[in-house]
Amino acid sequence: MTLPAIGISLGDPGGIGPEVVLKALATPSLLPEARFVVFGGRRVWDAERAALGLRLEAPIHEGDTVPPAPGLFFNDIGAMPGDFVRGRASGENGKSSFLAFEKAVEWAGKGVLDALVTAPISKTAWRLAGLPWRGHTEYLDSLYPGAIMTFWSERLRVALLSHHLPLREAIERVKKGTLLGFFRNLHQSLGRTKSGVRELLVAGLNPHAGEDGFLGTEEEDEIRPAVEEARQEGLAISGPFPPDTIFLKAIDCPEKMVIALYHDQGLIGFKLKAFETGVNATLGMPFIRTSPDHGTAYDIAGKGAADPRSLIAAIRMAVELS
Amino acid sequence: MTLPAIGISLGDPGGIGPEVVLKALATPSLLPEARFVVFGGRRVWDAERAALGLRLEAPIHEGDTVPPAPGLFFNDIGAMPGDFVRGRASGENGKSSFLAFEKAVEWAGKGVLDALVTAPISKTAWRLAGLPWRGHTEYLDSLYPGAIMTFWSERLRVALLSHHLPLREAIERVKKGTLLGFFRNLHQSLGRTKSGVRELLVAGLNPHAGEDGFLGTEEEDEIRPAVEEARQEGLAISGPFPPDTIFLKAIDCPEKMVIALYHDQGLIGFKLKAFETGVNATLGMPFIRTSPDHGTAYDIAGKGAADPRSLIAAIRMAVELS
Repeated sequence: MTLPAIGISLGDPGGIGPEVVLKALATPSLLPEARFVVFGGRRVWDAERAALGLRLEAPIHEGDTVPPAPGLFFNDIGAMPGDFVRGRASGENGKSSFLAFEKAVEWAGKGVLDALVTAPISKTAWRLAGLPWRGHTEYLDSLYPGAIMTFWSERLRVALLSHHLPLREAIERVKKGTLLGFFRNLHQSLGRTKSGVRELLVAGLNPHAGEDGFLGTEEEDEIRPAVEEARQEGLAISGPFPPDTIFLKAIDCPEKMVIALYHDQGLIGFKLKAFETGVNATLGMPFIRTSPDHGTAYDIAGKGAADPRSLIAAIRMAVELS
Repeated sequence: MTLPAIGISLGDPGGIGPEVVLKALATPSLLPEARFVVFGGRRVWDAERAALGLRLEAPIHEGDTVPPAPGLFFNDIGAMPGDFVRGRASGENGKSSFLAFEKAVEWAGKGVLDALVTAPISKTAWRLAGLPWRGHTEYLDSLYPGAIMTFWSERLRVALLSHHLPLREAIERVKKGTLLGFFRNLHQSLGRTKSGVRELLVAGLNPHAGEDGFLGTEEEDEIRPAVEEARQEGLAISGPFPPDTIFLKAIDCPEKMVIALYHDQGLIGFKLKAFETGVNATLGMPFIRTSPDHGTAYDIAGKGAADPRSLIAAIRMAVELS
């Protein structure tokens, strides 16, 4: 069996992305065996490597296939000026992080890569670069409309029905048909992984999951019918459960995943139980994409103090889900 | 100085309320000095006391004042049949728990009690009894429209702008005027306690607190103007903060309280950090009301296995906030 081919995009050159990627790849004992290809500006990589004093060979590889032996290669997107700005957002940095990400996505979409790990970009930098997408997820959404955001930690697993939407709009997504399509898509996506998740728990939308209609009608009108239909199709799924206790049902149960109906319902719970060890994984696409649970952290960029553990967890998860 | 007078309502006779009240009062070493008056059906009390084998003197006291010395008294609401049902909801039980609560609230409203601790009732039982209120909070809301639900644990403190409302209706409450009135009311209520809370952190409504309007407009149109005006009035208040990380800013900071804009935004965070040690306190009324963070727990009622720690915490909090 060929080892999985994992792409890693460097992220914003001004943030901690390049540093945590280098630190992670420099500790192979913590990584699964794989074929790694880093996408980014070579000058950024070289500057960061020198600053960290790491000896890490990553030969340039521009070909359209990844060599079959375990190893580390670099795909240079060029286009990066010698003196890039550290510690704040700039249009140049935004352009660089986008080009690296775009190329890695292209490779993954063609099947050259099994999974993609994305170091953090700056949304402000993307805006300064004139890019129309707000971030990684919006770009992937535009290519793969069924993309599903999921969050993984040792203690908890959460999938989001919707993510970057105003709460009012997120509520409008809570419809039987939308839910059912989401359940099927998530179920199929998980089935293609070695994640171990076998059971889906669906949150309600309203306090106490509507309390029999006293506190809202979406549970009885939309959510319960969708869950019932999915069960009849054979999915191991249950709910709706009261949102404020559903996480307690899933914590430390590796076979269970919580389906949250909007961004903060899922992420308030997840971040309180998994901060700094969490991984974001995008499912529902032809390839898996994972990313660490932190941002560019401009305030500590360039100081050598960034913690690579979340990125290491993202790489491990990418291999595990592939 | 007179010791605080604390009323305790027994809660649903079929649940674990009477058991945890008795267990708590039987361990005075864990309780602050106070004058306690239990409101409930004497037959329920006597039966539970006998079942637990506790020798606990609680003389009947029907007068309209509480004797000044530390002690424990009982106010018998009568009206309880000899054979009450344990382990499930009944109209008789609902009537009993309401009458005890109603009388305790009446005493507190007249200033006879400084604070009220309520053991859990069953909403189903109240419904079976034909009562128009869904629970303690709705009854208090009907008497004191400015009542504020707050949640306290050693690690976290949370106040809810709204509580038992469908999410769609809760969103409609997020208006500048409503928020400003709430901030003032909460600030004043806290100022009358010895809680130690000096700083309020306000959550946003939308993902990432709206991200400058990209993910929703309530932050810029309603929340930020309300926070600014409150600051100009001298309140120590800040926000709106992204809902999925605001709790991390307040954990283990006893001087900080999170203001959540709807039920689950506050309670997902609170329950993950404080399950089984949390206390619910109602502020914004002439007296303080606290309650434990659990329900009737019918499944373990009558087995002597109920844990009184949350009720003990509620009693301590009632004395502390008085």
